[in-house]
Amino acid sequence: MTDYRRLRVALLGAGAVGSQVAGLLRQHGDELADRAGATLELVGIAVRDIDAPREVDLPRELLTTDAESLIIGADIVIELMGGIEPARTHILQAINSGADVVTANKALLATHGPEIFDAADQVGAEVYYEAAAAGAIPIIRPLRDSLAGDRVQRIMGIVNGTTNYILDRMDTEGADFADVLADAQRLGYAESDPTADVEGYDAAQKAAILASLAFHTTVPLDAVHREGITAIDKAMMDAARHAGYVIKLLAVCERLTGEASEESISVRVYPALIDRAHPLASVHGANNAVFVQAEAAGNLMFYGAGAGGVQTASAVLGDVVSAARRHIAGGVGVGESTLANLPIVPVGRVTTRYQITLEVDDRPGVLATVAGILSDGRVSIATLEQTVVGSDESGVARLVIGTHKALEQDLSETVDRLAASGVVERVVSVLRVEGD
Amino acid sequence: MTDYRRLRVALLGAGAVGSQVAGLLRQHGDELADRAGATLELVGIAVRDIDAPREVDLPRELLTTDAESLIIGADIVIELMGGIEPARTHILQAINSGADVVTANKALLATHGPEIFDAADQVGAEVYYEAAAAGAIPIIRPLRDSLAGDRVQRIMGIVNGTTNYILDRMDTEGADFADVLADAQRLGYAESDPTADVEGYDAAQKAAILASLAFHTTVPLDAVHREGITAIDKAMMDAARHAGYVIKLLAVCERLTGEASEESISVRVYPALIDRAHPLASVHGANNAVFVQAEAAGNLMFYGAGAGGVQTASAVLGDVVSAARRHIAGGVGVGESTLANLPIVPVGRVTTRYQITLEVDDRPGVLATVAGILSDGRVSIATLEQTVVGSDESGVARLVIGTHKALEQDLSETVDRLAASGVVERVVSVLRVEGD
Repeated sequence: MTDYRRLRVALLGAGAVGSQVAGLLRQHGDELADRAGATLELVGIAVRDIDAPREVDLPRELLTTDAESLIIGADIVIELMGGIEPARTHILQAINSGADVVTANKALLATHGPEIFDAADQVGAEVYYEAAAAGAIPIIRPLRDSLAGDRVQRIMGIVNGTTNYILDRMDTEGADFADVLADAQRLGYAESDPTADVEGYDAAQKAAILASLAFHTTVPLDAVHREGITAIDKAMMDAARHAGYVIKLLAVCERLTGEASEESISVRVYPALIDRAHPLASVHGANNAVFVQAEAAGNLMFYGAGAGGVQTASAVLGDVVSAARRHIAGGVGVGESTLANLPIVPVGRVTTRYQITLEVDDRPGVLATVAGILSDGRVSIATLEQTVVGSDESGVARLVIGTHKALEQDLSETVDRLAASGVVERVVSVLRVEGD
Repeated sequence: MTDYRRLRVALLGAGAVGSQVAGLLRQHGDELADRAGATLELVGIAVRDIDAPREVDLPRELLTTDAESLIIGADIVIELMGGIEPARTHILQAINSGADVVTANKALLATHGPEIFDAADQVGAEVYYEAAAAGAIPIIRPLRDSLAGDRVQRIMGIVNGTTNYILDRMDTEGADFADVLADAQRLGYAESDPTADVEGYDAAQKAAILASLAFHTTVPLDAVHREGITAIDKAMMDAARHAGYVIKLLAVCERLTGEASEESISVRVYPALIDRAHPLASVHGANNAVFVQAEAAGNLMFYGAGAGGVQTASAVLGDVVSAARRHIAGGVGVGESTLANLPIVPVGRVTTRYQITLEVDDRPGVLATVAGILSDGRVSIATLEQTVVGSDESGVARLVIGTHKALEQDLSETVDRLAASGVVERVVSVLRVEGD
């Protein structure tokens, strides 16, 4: 065995990911040393409760409740506690005591990223966060390094496994949202409080991180437009299938070039229709995928497990090896470049295609009225399908209108006008169509 | 504009990829400088013929036929000439004159990789080759860095666009190999001499590069088992579809753990059956994809354009930015680790599932004979379908046998024995089944 320099690694947190990281560090120590060019010595694991049950057996002498003492003297600090505090304080302590940091904490990076990256810049430390963007899927290095000579135009990501699991089962089984959610909770795919997932908060955090990196721009979390999937029902799923689409919760990060010469970006999370032939449509179960459109490289897709303790641990350990190599050989880490700092536009200024489903009075002149309102609102009709709802005598028809690209603000005002027009009984759904 | 240090970049070759690299370097100079932390000055482009027509207009004063003079004094040399010589000599010159090298030359790396990486190690230079493995798809950094803390178990890659285009059209249109090949040549998807693609040589070079990186082992090109797709006909495609499979030319790089405690690897390229539900089955047209199974990360897939001038140029420029960062900030490049140096086993010692299609005499006792030969040969039957060929009176039946996992050597000897058994009229096809 080669005689390597020893690097002191401190682990904060021993939950689903942390305990796997500890296990793999100990199990594959020799291989990791060969790849890092340094022996990675796990010097301690900070936990809240030393006696809590864990997925992986950890030597008791490594466990401590004193995170601060552990951080002092560490070369690499791995933060897997989650949440904002005390994770933020510990990461800043680590940076200021000269350590490089590896974290999977998307909530923290999406809210306090600039503070953390600035602190690291001040002292020449590096913060690695591959596991914060899309779990086990390598996306940070491809965006930062492989595409460094290219220009990312758009990212469309399925970045939340819980919602993809729910939508996929609704699609394949024709099941209802509530039933699948209950089942997902029972099987451990969804938390008992599923808000962070089903309302799109988790996806919005990841969208902010991906957009920051892809567009070299600080993207605060509150600049991300966010809608969840709780309004998606069986009827919408059926209608999507009928039209050749599937509904996915997408994180869309887009470079806009509009009429003005100045570039801007849009970052948004919402359920959208996507063509069944699109590579993202075949991402099933709790899997994640990030579809990247770049000026030169064209279309790329990165697919894999978006969550899971051992899967995420793989991404964390990749970062640990990178941090170790940097300790030995120098060089730059993942870093954060915000040199472009493009303006971020609100969702109202985004253009996409839409599918509008209406229930209207089934009498002469109604279609002309609807078409007139759309045209007045600068929303151009691409496809239209009218069907009778219930019996012929119900007097209600269903209109499914596919639009050409329209401005979100125009579309939204037009739908309001349709709802108030007197001929529309009900706006059944308005969904964006992504992926052209 | 920030005042950056200038780095001298020499480009060797101005073909489909080279001319795009030159164009992008000049077009996006400011953005590239911000990302690299250095101004990338294209000091010259070595070509064979200064007056040859090119896809991108290049300033005449940059063109030279004197590659050697261009290399001297360059900080980064981009080799896009292709072929073994003079590319090999120029790369070694560049390394020995202190430059870092970026290359897309898979033929060279698959045959002279160790020599080039050794030369680079001697002087502390780096060789970057993202574009040599799967065109525009970022796969080198994910394998080397993101998965550095994990263990790759298997890679299955669709790494040749021409053959995927041909097989995909045969599958979707029911067309014949020769017709689609002729069409692909007319459309520019296949060369006038298609040997390198359809016989699997190109895929074998990429397999050697991917396996070397994934298993930290020197994989010489002649250790890669290679079969092409020229024997695939419409009947085999139809039979595959009937059984729920699609035929893809796969580069398989596998870690074997067999009975002996010592690990080994297998690297092979051949057309194989893959389940239609597998993510690789939905890779259409000339696209490429690399499916990676890792111990902790689970299943990952990287998808995108495997070839094309501007797409490949994206990967080359990503490497150029990495090389520039290393010049400024230090650190290690892609490198080559062969610390594991696992033994590479011949294809005979690999186990996979098989689908064997036979035409047999349609009379009593034949099935028992066939089953006996399989069983004697340690090949276990998983599925069996018998159909009559032609009219009931033809006296010929078709047997499609799906096997459990069997050793290639056992399978091959068993097929020979079946062919000589007197009851088998014709061995129609023997295909491996991959992707379980």
